[in-house]
Parts: sequence; structure tokens; C-alpha cells
Amino acid sequence: MTQTDNRRSWIASANGHPDFPLQNLPLGIFSPAGATPRGGVAIGDAIFDLKVASDAGLFSGEASEAAHAVCGDSLNAFFALGASARRALRSQLQDLLAEGSAAQARLEAMGQALLPAAATCQLHLPARVGDYTDFYVGIHHANNVGRLFRPDNPLLPNYKHVPIGYHARSSTVCVSGTPVRRPLGQTLPPGQEAPSFGPSKRLDYELELGIWIGQGNEMGEAIAIGDAQRHIAGYCLLNDWSARDVQAWEYQPLGPFLAKNFGTTVSPWVVTAEALEPFRRAQPARPEGDPQPLPYLLDEADQANGAFDIQLEVLLLTPAMREQGLAPQRLALSSTLNMYWTVAQLVAHHSVGGCKLQPGDLFGSGTLSGPEPEAFGSLLESTFGGKQPITLPGGEQRTFLQDGDEVILRARCEREGYASIGFGECRGVVLAAR
Amino acid sequence: MTQTDNRRSWIASANGHPDFPLQNLPLGIFSPAGATPRGGVAIGDAIFDLKVASDAGLFSGEASEAAHAVCGDSLNAFFALGASARRALRSQLQDLLAEGSAAQARLEAMGQALLPAAATCQLHLPARVGDYTDFYVGIHHANNVGRLFRPDNPLLPNYKHVPIGYHARSSTVCVSGTPVRRPLGQTLPPGQEAPSFGPSKRLDYELELGIWIGQGNEMGEAIAIGDAQRHIAGYCLLNDWSARDVQAWEYQPLGPFLAKNFGTTVSPWVVTAEALEPFRRAQPARPEGDPQPLPYLLDEADQANGAFDIQLEVLLLTPAMREQGLAPQRLALSSTLNMYWTVAQLVAHHSVGGCKLQPGDLFGSGTLSGPEPEAFGSLLESTFGGKQPITLPGGEQRTFLQDGDEVILRARCEREGYASIGFGECRGVVLAAR
Repeated sequence: MTQTDNRRSWIASANGHPDFPLQNLPLGIFSPAGATPRGGVAIGDAIFDLKVASDAGLFSGEASEAAHAVCGDSLNAFFALGASARRALRSQLQDLLAEGSAAQARLEAMGQALLPAAATCQLHLPARVGDYTDFYVGIHHANNVGRLFRPDNPLLPNYKHVPIGYHARSSTVCVSGTPVRRPLGQTLPPGQEAPSFGPSKRLDYELELGIWIGQGNEMGEAIAIGDAQRHIAGYCLLNDWSARDVQAWEYQPLGPFLAKNFGTTVSPWVVTAEALEPFRRAQPARPEGDPQPLPYLLDEADQANGAFDIQLEVLLLTPAMREQGLAPQRLALSSTLNMYWTVAQLVAHHSVGGCKLQPGDLFGSGTLSGPEPEAFGSLLESTFGGKQPITLPGGEQRTFLQDGDEVILRARCEREGYASIGFGECRGVVLAAR
Repeated sequence: MTQTDNRRSWIASANGHPDFPLQNLPLGIFSPAGATPRGGVAIGDAIFDLKVASDAGLFSGEASEAAHAVCGDSLNAFFALGASARRALRSQLQDLLAEGSAAQARLEAMGQALLPAAATCQLHLPARVGDYTDFYVGIHHANNVGRLFRPDNPLLPNYKHVPIGYHARSSTVCVSGTPVRRPLGQTLPPGQEAPSFGPSKRLDYELELGIWIGQGNEMGEAIAIGDAQRHIAGYCLLNDWSARDVQAWEYQPLGPFLAKNFGTTVSPWVVTAEALEPFRRAQPARPEGDPQPLPYLLDEADQANGAFDIQLEVLLLTPAMREQGLAPQRLALSSTLNMYWTVAQLVAHHSVGGCKLQPGDLFGSGTLSGPEPEAFGSLLESTFGGKQPITLPGGEQRTFLQDGDEVILRARCEREGYASIGFGECRGVVLAAR
């Protein structure tokens, strides 16, 4: 059961912070000015330095072990410890940072060394990504895109039985703020029989939930759906940049390759299952006539509580808007309730044949569009395949991304009686092709 | 220019060895009995321990740096050093091990500590695989399989323009000798509309060349085809185990997933470009009417010398054959000359959009079938989709693999006037499903 927790923090900026109140406490890897990367926790406008805290002996027991595991430059070792250590650390962190904490005076005395301002720190990729898998569980996206690529056959017969996914490229997963270069590639111009080569003309974003894997399984074993939650370390935002013209030409029969592998951007903060607990929901009922999941994908507790109510937003900031001092323009507002499969179903399916998952593996949910255009999570959908440009503040139009455009993803969880939390931003600017 | 090199070694078993004469010197990671993993070189029936040799100061200059890089439990650091260090090490190794070497007495005195018998050692995966990409460049395989999956449309329009490939699963790449468990998964039985779940009934092997990446490139940059050779560390055999029934049901629209990610077996020894130099060939001319590659895939030197003449063999040993003392039965003999694209074209294509390659990344060529049934590199092809069983010595039949079956891949290079070399074996036994 989720209990209302409206505790405030003695760190003033945390109270009412849109992303990082005391109830969130997401983990990441950061460098304080001039220092080496280490683990930290976002709290208000500051970052709680877990290395400094660990060295100062602020934690005890299992929490101490967890804090020690994040003193290096990645969270992989922490992810490997599993949920019990993560909860122990969270619990002690909340006690340290809550109003009325006995430790407040001591922590305040440590000042910027313990709690540097986030604005003075550099954020890094939170973990070394072993394998990155991109799913396709946004059913409205699958319908919309399927209609464009296969007008007669938008949703293939396997879609409602199999959590469709594919192996994606881990080497180019990068942290928010990393510029992404427009890829060169082969495309088949309309009406041509032979392909051309050059910069992608249909560069797009995809609005996705990212899932970080915690404890893994051995090759040849599987993770039962009832155990799946224990293998998830946390969540982030994920922009699966896509070159649609490259994709259309290359994707048959083996799936997307160069259309996707030039870059994938994730938000730096790993939001934990504990922080998301109040925002769990029952998995929305399948439409009348849809098949029931096979038994290995069906778990009563997961159906009752395995979905999330997370608002997802994508915004665009063009160079002209930046020059004119305009704010980023929202292009879509969607929700993780548009997932046709739960995260536990993804873990169970991925491993059911014996595929080994490891701490630091990353899943993308697939683009989480809603049923209406205001909730379409890619330009391919929002512009109906590039046919209906969208108009931006200042009068510019876009069908696909132009050089200098910045894509910003945000996520937010709200529930009556609970502190709202956010994911922080996932940003990336498009660089011109080489 | 390749010069004939028929030098013999003072290690008697190396001379005339089917795989590992003085002219090969492939690298791998091994554990001598009771010791930690470290780098070694296969020579005849022994393994030259590079850690012991490095500690004894047997190398100088760049070769010393290279040997130092292989003292740990993976070749990644060695791969990152590039071709010059690799060549320096090879040159000094050949001088040390050739007949008439001034070092012979000293090395012989070091005995089993320097040159343990291979049979007493355990072999490991040679590198930590960052990303694993599986290509599809065996055009006869693509034709054969395409005909089974899409009778009207075997070879898609992109095939002769794009080196088709997909991201595969790195976490389950395992070294020869590792048993592979038959996967569970969803399949659509013939005539049914809803899928079933259970052990794959159409488990198959795929005969592939593996390519280990050496020095990488930065995200957003590309490797020009003329530079591609500098980024390849070496070659191996690769068995891309495949669950055909799972594959047929799941693969649209995003490609193979659970059908492949339960295991991929590689041979333990990394055969270098230097060892393969005498076996290079001109890329076979494309059939009349086939398109020319786009300029980024076309390099004169690569066309003249970028293919390999490597014989590839797949053999099967069933439990019944093992009991009867029968030898493994050859199921196919093929050649790397069946690659429609050169390895340099694969590297250039993979990176042209800015995808980052890293030392220890692995490519599979795709199944290298020849045009005739005797050269079909998978059971799917050899049994014509499971319709025509093959008969084994002892009278057994197979359409697909049964539990306990062992698949063995071998590769061999022969050329008049040159010492033959081999790759060693790539073996794997099928375990029963969980």
C-alpha cells in the first residue's frame, strides 16, 4: 500500500520543486566542478554527493553498502545490488534530508561539498549500457506508423500477442545535452528505383520511457513475470532519434539499423520504483476482442498495479525561437498509460527464451503516442508522414527536424494528496550532417 | 604483397598443424590449469602464455606494449592498440618461435609455464563484447531463406544496395564449448490463428564468419571504406543459433529478437588480418545487371583484395553418433567468397551514419551458404524449410536440431605454396529446454 508522504525537506528548493522534492530522490552520475564523476541524488536545485556522504560515514548497514557502490563513475554496481539496498539508501536519505532531521546542522556545515548546486555540476550517462533493447509497446504509435509504412496492414498479427522489440545500439546511448549529428545514409527518393546517399531529410524524435535493468539473470534462465519488478533499477526519459527516410529503405526484413543507431538520448536521473509507487495504476483493460496475454505474460498483481500514470511531454526549440527569446513549444502531451504491455511483461518476455539481462541494460518502451494528434510522440505521426507541417510560435513550420533544433522531453507524475515528481529533462540539439 | 612464408617452428606440433602453424598465431584468452585468465597465442598443440612471456621480458618496443595489453582477462585493450602493435607482436613472436631462434633454449627451459598444452587449458571469450551486429551478406542464404519466408519476394529491393544487418544481443555471446539451452517462445502453429508457447521445435544453427572490431570511431564520425581494415582486429567462427518457429512469428516488423538472443557461439581464437593476408582475393564480380555499390561502399583496393578465400564447414554430432563412436558428420562446406559485401564494406556502412564502433564489438557476416545444397549453412536451407530431412550416419534423420546434438564449425585456408591455417573449432551442444 502506498502511504501519503508529504514530508518537507530542510533544503528549501526541494519543497514544491517540479522534479526533485524529497519524495523523488533519483540517482545519477555527476561531476562537481573540477572533480571526478560520482553518484549523486537530485534534491531541489542541488545534488547530494553520495561519495562525499559515504566518505563522511553518513550511512549505516545496507544503505552504506549502497552508497559505497555509487562512489565510482557508473551506477552499474549499485544496480546489481538490487531493491533492498536501494530502499535502505532511500530511507536513510529521506531521514537525513527531511525537515527536523537530527543531522541537519552537520549536513549544512558540509555546505557545497555535500550539496553542490546542480547548475555547477556536469551530468553523465548514469550507467555503462550493456545491451539496449527498444520495444514497440505504444499501440497508437504502432497503428499510426504501421498505417504509413503498410497502409493495408498497420498492425501485424503478432502485435497483440508479442511485446514486439528489437535489439538497438548501446554504444551511442548518450546523456541529455549531448548534441546528435544528423546521419548520412541511403534513402530511396519517391519514384526512384535506385537509392541516393546523403543527409537524412526526415529526422525525427521518439518520446519514450526508458527502463534501467537492475539485477540480471543467467543465460538460459528466465525471469518470471512475478519476479520482474525485482530486476528493474529505475526509469528515465528516452529519445530514440530516427531517420525516417533511411528507416523506410533499410528496415526490411531485419528491422531498423542505421535509421536509429546514430544516437539515443536519455535523461540523467534514474527515478526509482519507490518514487513511482504512488503513480502505479492497473493496466488499462484491453479493448473488447483483443486476445488475453499468454500465461507467461500474465500476473494478477501486475495487471492490478503494473502500469504507470506518468505524463510525458515533448517540446521543440528552434534556433529562430531561441533568438527571439521564445519558450520551447509543446508538440505533444501523452502518458505511459498508452503502453499496451507493462514493464514487467517486457522483462518477462525478453528473458523467457534464456536471454541474459545484466545490470545497466536499458529498455526503451517504444514511442508512447496517445490516440489523438495532440498526443503523438513523433513528427512522423504529428505531421502525418510529413504531409501536414506543424506551425511553431514565430510562424515557422516543421515537417521533420532541422539543424539546430532542440528536442526536449519531460515527464511528470501527479496525484491528489501526493507530492508531484518529475524526471528532469532529456534534451538534444541536432547538429548538421558531416 | 604477400610473400611465401614457409618457416617452421621449433615447436614440433606446430609444423603441419591443421589450424595453428607458425604462420597463424591467433590470439585468445585462456586459463592455464589453476591460474587466472590471460592472453595467449595458439601454436601447434600448445598455447604460448603472453602474460608469462611479458613478465619474463621477452618482447621489446611496441610488441612489449601489445603483450602487456593482453595480460588481463580480455583482448579489448589489445584490440584498441590497433594494427601496428599487433604486427609488432606477431613479428617478434615469429622470431621467437621459428626454427633457429636464438631464444629457443631459454624458452624451452621455461617449459609448461610458458607453453602449456592446450588440452590442459580452459578457453574463454576473447573480448568483452560491446555491441554485436549480425549482417546478412550471404546472398545465397538470403535468397534461400527469403523464398521460405516470402515465396513471392525472396530478395527485397534494398538487398543489393544496402549491406543489410541488425543489432543482435551481446550478453549471450559465448565461447565454443558453452552449452546452449533450447529456448522457450511463442510460435504460430500451422493453420492456427493464435500462438502457442513452448520449446522451439525448429532450432537451427547458422554458419558465419565473425569479425572483431579493433580501434573504434567517435559517435557522429564515420570510418571511410579505405580506412576500414585498420579498424578490424581479427576474425573467428560464429554460430548464430536460431529458433526458426519463433523467428517466423515475431520478426515483423522489427526483425529477429527472441529467435536469436538466447545464444551465439564464437570460436575462441582471433585470427589476425596478417595471418589471412595470403588468402585474400578480389571481391567476386557482381552478376550481370546487379547495381554498383554507392561510392561510400566502393574502394578500388577493397574490390581488388577485400574478399577472403576461407573454407567454412559445419558438422553435426548427435548423442546416438557419439554413443556409436561415429565421427561428426559434415552437413555443409562453403566459403567466405559467398559474401555479397566485403568486410570493409560492412565497417564503412555500419559507421557511415555516425554509429560508434568500439574495440571488442563483434560482427557476424550472416549465414554463408553457397549456391548448392551441399553448401547450405543452416538446416532451414538444407532441409528446405524442414520438408526434406537429412540422413545421418547410423540412419538417424534430422530436420532441425534435437537435444544433445552438437554443432561444430570449422574454417580452413589453403593456398598453393603457403602453409595452411585454420580457425580452431566453434562447438556447442543443445541442452533441453527448461
